[in-house]
Amino acid sequence: MTVPRIGVTLGDPGGVGPEVVLKALTRRDSLPPAVYVVFADSRIVIEEAGALGVPGDFAPWRPGGEDRRPGLFLSEVPAPGAGRGGAKPEAANGRASFGFFEAALEAVGGGALDAMVTAPVSKAGWHLAGVPWRGHTEYLEHFYPGAVMSFWSDRLRVALLSHHVPLREALTKVRKDALLGYFRVLHQSAGRVPAGPREFLVPGLNPHAGENGLLGGEEEREIRPAVDAARAEGIDVSGPYPPDTVFRMALGRPERMVAALYHDQGLIAFKLESFETGVNATLGLPFVRTSPDHGTAFDIAGKGLADPRSMMEAIRLAVRFTSSAS
Amino acid sequence: MTVPRIGVTLGDPGGVGPEVVLKALTRRDSLPPAVYVVFADSRIVIEEAGALGVPGDFAPWRPGGEDRRPGLFLSEVPAPGAGRGGAKPEAANGRASFGFFEAALEAVGGGALDAMVTAPVSKAGWHLAGVPWRGHTEYLEHFYPGAVMSFWSDRLRVALLSHHVPLREALTKVRKDALLGYFRVLHQSAGRVPAGPREFLVPGLNPHAGENGLLGGEEEREIRPAVDAARAEGIDVSGPYPPDTVFRMALGRPERMVAALYHDQGLIAFKLESFETGVNATLGLPFVRTSPDHGTAFDIAGKGLADPRSMMEAIRLAVRFTSSAS
Repeated sequence: MTVPRIGVTLGDPGGVGPEVVLKALTRRDSLPPAVYVVFADSRIVIEEAGALGVPGDFAPWRPGGEDRRPGLFLSEVPAPGAGRGGAKPEAANGRASFGFFEAALEAVGGGALDAMVTAPVSKAGWHLAGVPWRGHTEYLEHFYPGAVMSFWSDRLRVALLSHHVPLREALTKVRKDALLGYFRVLHQSAGRVPAGPREFLVPGLNPHAGENGLLGGEEEREIRPAVDAARAEGIDVSGPYPPDTVFRMALGRPERMVAALYHDQGLIAFKLESFETGVNATLGLPFVRTSPDHGTAFDIAGKGLADPRSMMEAIRLAVRFTSSAS
Repeated sequence: MTVPRIGVTLGDPGGVGPEVVLKALTRRDSLPPAVYVVFADSRIVIEEAGALGVPGDFAPWRPGGEDRRPGLFLSEVPAPGAGRGGAKPEAANGRASFGFFEAALEAVGGGALDAMVTAPVSKAGWHLAGVPWRGHTEYLEHFYPGAVMSFWSDRLRVALLSHHVPLREALTKVRKDALLGYFRVLHQSAGRVPAGPREFLVPGLNPHAGENGLLGGEEEREIRPAVDAARAEGIDVSGPYPPDTVFRMALGRPERMVAALYHDQGLIAFKLESFETGVNATLGLPFVRTSPDHGTAFDIAGKGLADPRSMMEAIRLAVRFTSSAS
């Protein structure tokens, strides 16, 4: 039996990452069978497992050495000075979480893993540690400029053409070529997930999708030509639709995804419908990366209160993506 | 007993306006006691009432002549050539619905009425009739430049700083002076409705409300100074909050209203939460004007299928506004 190989990073040791990773993976009866590899310092894992009263002594992972039977392994990434402790951003924990991420990236990039799931890191922690990236996504975008952020829940699936840029700048990214590339990424990645979205719905940029040019020109000048070009390639994309009604068209329709044009267009809708139950997937990479849609939650870290469901959903989605590989 | 005097326009005779107006007003046991004055051609009212099997022979209204006891009256506005008929935009019906609107406006503007409720008109109908306004709101904004569109439901209340302009242009309207005027309008109108919003929550313009200038400058340059200035005047406004979480802060909290910065920022949220159950109120006028949050619905017009609940809510909200007059 060959099963997918999924790397899971521990996240910031001072946040809820270690807790949700251990809760999720020690309940893995309810997860799909896979080789699960935690990227962490075993000292922190054992400490967290002790606090939670779950087993923490995972077998060491030997890349390529496992025989592809389901199981739970640890890839040792030493993180001196890091620990559960302060429940706030700290340099040692920033350095640690960046190290776990880089080690998992190297494994998945090199083909030793099929997908990776990242637990939350602290932007402030990375900054204190001198890491020159704002977060996972910015790092991935730097090395993979075609990367696309997407958000998944039972109710709704949304992708973003751009995300962490000022709105004024986001408008300038609504161009035919960029849109065509975006639609291709959605079609080739999200579009191949079993029981995932096949139809991509594009909102307009302007009120009422521009109302035939009366309320803005981007729809006719950029969006419609990109939709036409993508359709000619066999991509099932349609629009532009009025931004204030397109999300309703996709609610509860797993075969549909909204291809939003800027951060808040997509996330106002997604967070209203799927607050803290969503999962984030970075599309357009040569591998799969998902993550829970919550942060380090320092305020509840170390108290045993963190809910692992978003992490479990992130793991399930990563496995679904791996079964789409052809 | 003195009761509020509420004008109700019939809307486009070919749409669902006549039906929802008659259904609402002939069920007025469930509406607050008021003098209700329908602005319409009595011929069309009688025809619609006959089709619905409800009474249609309202007493003629004499402005200032009624003795302020609850009742249903008609203000005759002749509309030659107009009628229920085609269920599509027609010049005669556009002319008729504009005439009903102007007659009601004149009455409410002159103090003969306390508030007006407008049934849906057809933009295309107005255009065919040569009316130089896109719709009610554009007309009102022309004569009252400080007018503000707002949307009300049980779940959520949202106002818009700007609405029917391209997004690129909407960004240029996010300026301190305009925001301060906007907050004043909200405080002085919505803020005086019994059991209405007292706290106004402002989203940022940019992702994460600009993240201290990293993702855009409008928050620090325009929004925060406007919030500070308004608070110094005793207006309970706060923010800027991240646009993708601020709407959740106001859900199910009738004392809160989100002061959105552009059309889709507010309406993506409102239409997800309150699709077709909402009510529209134009704020910042010297009188009150509300309307149901649906259109002429030509596709179901004349079939007796139209749901009057949004019209009834619009009437109830108009009455609430009149009891705030001091």
